[in-house]
Amino acid sequence: MTETPEPVSVRVDLGPRSYDILIGPGLVASAGRHIAAALPRARALVVSDETVAALHADRLLAALESAGIGAALLTLPPGETTKSFDHLIAVVDRILAERLERGDAVVALGGGVIGDLSGFAAGIARRGMQFVQVPTSLLAQVDSSVGGKTGINSARGKNLVGVFHQPALVLADTDVLDTLAEREFRAGYAEVVKYGLIDRPDFFEWLEANRAAIFSGGAARVEAVAASCRAKAAVVAGDEREDGDRALLNLGHTFGHALESVVRYDPARLVHGEGVAIGMALAHRFSVRLGLCSGQDAGRAEAHLRAAGLPTRIQEIPGDGFTVDALMDKIAQDKKVSRGALTFILTRGIGRAYVARDVAPDAVRDFLNQELAA
Amino acid sequence: MTETPEPVSVRVDLGPRSYDILIGPGLVASAGRHIAAALPRARALVVSDETVAALHADRLLAALESAGIGAALLTLPPGETTKSFDHLIAVVDRILAERLERGDAVVALGGGVIGDLSGFAAGIARRGMQFVQVPTSLLAQVDSSVGGKTGINSARGKNLVGVFHQPALVLADTDVLDTLAEREFRAGYAEVVKYGLIDRPDFFEWLEANRAAIFSGGAARVEAVAASCRAKAAVVAGDEREDGDRALLNLGHTFGHALESVVRYDPARLVHGEGVAIGMALAHRFSVRLGLCSGQDAGRAEAHLRAAGLPTRIQEIPGDGFTVDALMDKIAQDKKVSRGALTFILTRGIGRAYVARDVAPDAVRDFLNQELAA
Repeated sequence: MTETPEPVSVRVDLGPRSYDILIGPGLVASAGRHIAAALPRARALVVSDETVAALHADRLLAALESAGIGAALLTLPPGETTKSFDHLIAVVDRILAERLERGDAVVALGGGVIGDLSGFAAGIARRGMQFVQVPTSLLAQVDSSVGGKTGINSARGKNLVGVFHQPALVLADTDVLDTLAEREFRAGYAEVVKYGLIDRPDFFEWLEANRAAIFSGGAARVEAVAASCRAKAAVVAGDEREDGDRALLNLGHTFGHALESVVRYDPARLVHGEGVAIGMALAHRFSVRLGLCSGQDAGRAEAHLRAAGLPTRIQEIPGDGFTVDALMDKIAQDKKVSRGALTFILTRGIGRAYVARDVAPDAVRDFLNQELAA
Repeated sequence: MTETPEPVSVRVDLGPRSYDILIGPGLVASAGRHIAAALPRARALVVSDETVAALHADRLLAALESAGIGAALLTLPPGETTKSFDHLIAVVDRILAERLERGDAVVALGGGVIGDLSGFAAGIARRGMQFVQVPTSLLAQVDSSVGGKTGINSARGKNLVGVFHQPALVLADTDVLDTLAEREFRAGYAEVVKYGLIDRPDFFEWLEANRAAIFSGGAARVEAVAASCRAKAAVVAGDEREDGDRALLNLGHTFGHALESVVRYDPARLVHGEGVAIGMALAHRFSVRLGLCSGQDAGRAEAHLRAAGLPTRIQEIPGDGFTVDALMDKIAQDKKVSRGALTFILTRGIGRAYVARDVAPDAVRDFLNQELAA
């Protein structure tokens, strides 16, 4: 067994709900020790999907057992459709069937779908159990596992049902990212870039210099995940329930969600991170058009996304359906829209994003017309 | 239209989640004004059951309309079985279908079932909407509408799934209690008595002197509800998520839940407040047996419950099934049981209850043997 370095620790500062994110290689294998330290005497239910469980569940269960943590495993089908009331009920029922108490832990081993679903189940079983995230995708490590947002989809839209339920611990094992498909890693990287573009120009510059190293693993990858978690933790600590500045995390997401919605969340056409990449490029070009941002900065943001193999234009999405009317309709339905006024995250340059709450729908329409004609 | 006095206001002090409970006559008719003051520009979904809606929904909807609050009504079947995942999903879907936003309100018009269910729906739709309680039973006015506990039942037990979600406002209209069946009013009164028995001996003495006036309505009823809400608010403010002293509110409930469970929650045999009345009498007699409480105090508690028409002995419940083994099995399953040790609320006298976390199961068993042989 090789010696693994001590993980990097990022504190999410939320008063009595504060917790640590540990980031580094080998954390699945040492999960038992870390969970036992955070939650003494807890038992656990590990929730995973079939794909991830086949790769990592045995190792995690062995780690829990070796730390004296009795654990059961619940495996669900992979994919976004698992974020449903039916699967929520199944997870809650299993928690109760295992007679877990409030101090026991639901452990999410998987990507955003598993994290969102099992965090929601942990938030409502016995009115709130302990919850541990072991995110296995880059997207989950740098975004969905940090901040306490949990939820499922409704027939009326994505993530419309859920709770804020903070985990007791997050273990981001950077080794497991080696098992991701290249496309999935790239998609997660879009969210990493996002933190630089929001308000960390130095981090963006560091990413420009270290992109290849991050993709190949090692210390640069650990640092990229840790810096992303620090960035998100800082925003979440200032606005736990998304009443204010947390909206900055939606950079690229209003356009991105509209694109995902037009393709009906078909991952063959577009995955979330790709939508965010295109959305961020659109937000920058829209800001240029509004005279807020220099064309040079917008070009630099776009160039970095392209270098990482990410799309930056609507026309890169295979298939059709991208009309101005269809996109405007989706944008108007977005749950961040408040009483008619359109809220967008716009930017004054690299790392200078801000929340604009008064964007005229006609300005968005004109911009999209230009984009689709290009 | 008769002049109604200004309602009594009780503040529940929970930092950013603080809210007022207004108590008095005529509050359904003035609900629009109070809700508009607490939640400016909110729209609303009123959730009720068929029985309560027939009596009060028209008046509430008219009050909302006259205050400029657009409101829809969702009516569900009455009864405990409505606290299910199926009905939860129906309420959430209606909230989303009405396109209510986070600042809009779910208004619960009903007893504990409607309050628990719609509070849960409000807690998870869009990860938390505004919530207003208009409790129409005495039990809901003095207990379930205060404190933010929401939830539904699972096949594995009652109230095992839910969230803590504080309302923005509670409107306890003491006039609507005139529409309650006598048995239901008495059952709610058991929870009023509980607050005196926990730690308010002066209130208990006041109840002994004013019981008849409270049952007939008017100022004494308003004061009884207000004092109960103040008592519960004080406990909740000190322990929002039931980690400590909030357990005192379970006086009579461990025995009471076991009795309810044995009769399978058949309201023809036993309703919750009756179970609590018997449970409180048992807790006092158990405390006498353990040498903690004088027989005189236990007799006084029991005498007041009997004077209110409430049962105080297991043998008063119609039907059979009350064996020591059956009761011990239910007590061991209670969710407040932690890792084998039995937790009971015991008492050193009227208004001197405390949390005992180390009660020997054999002592409970011996006591129940004595009770059932009596």
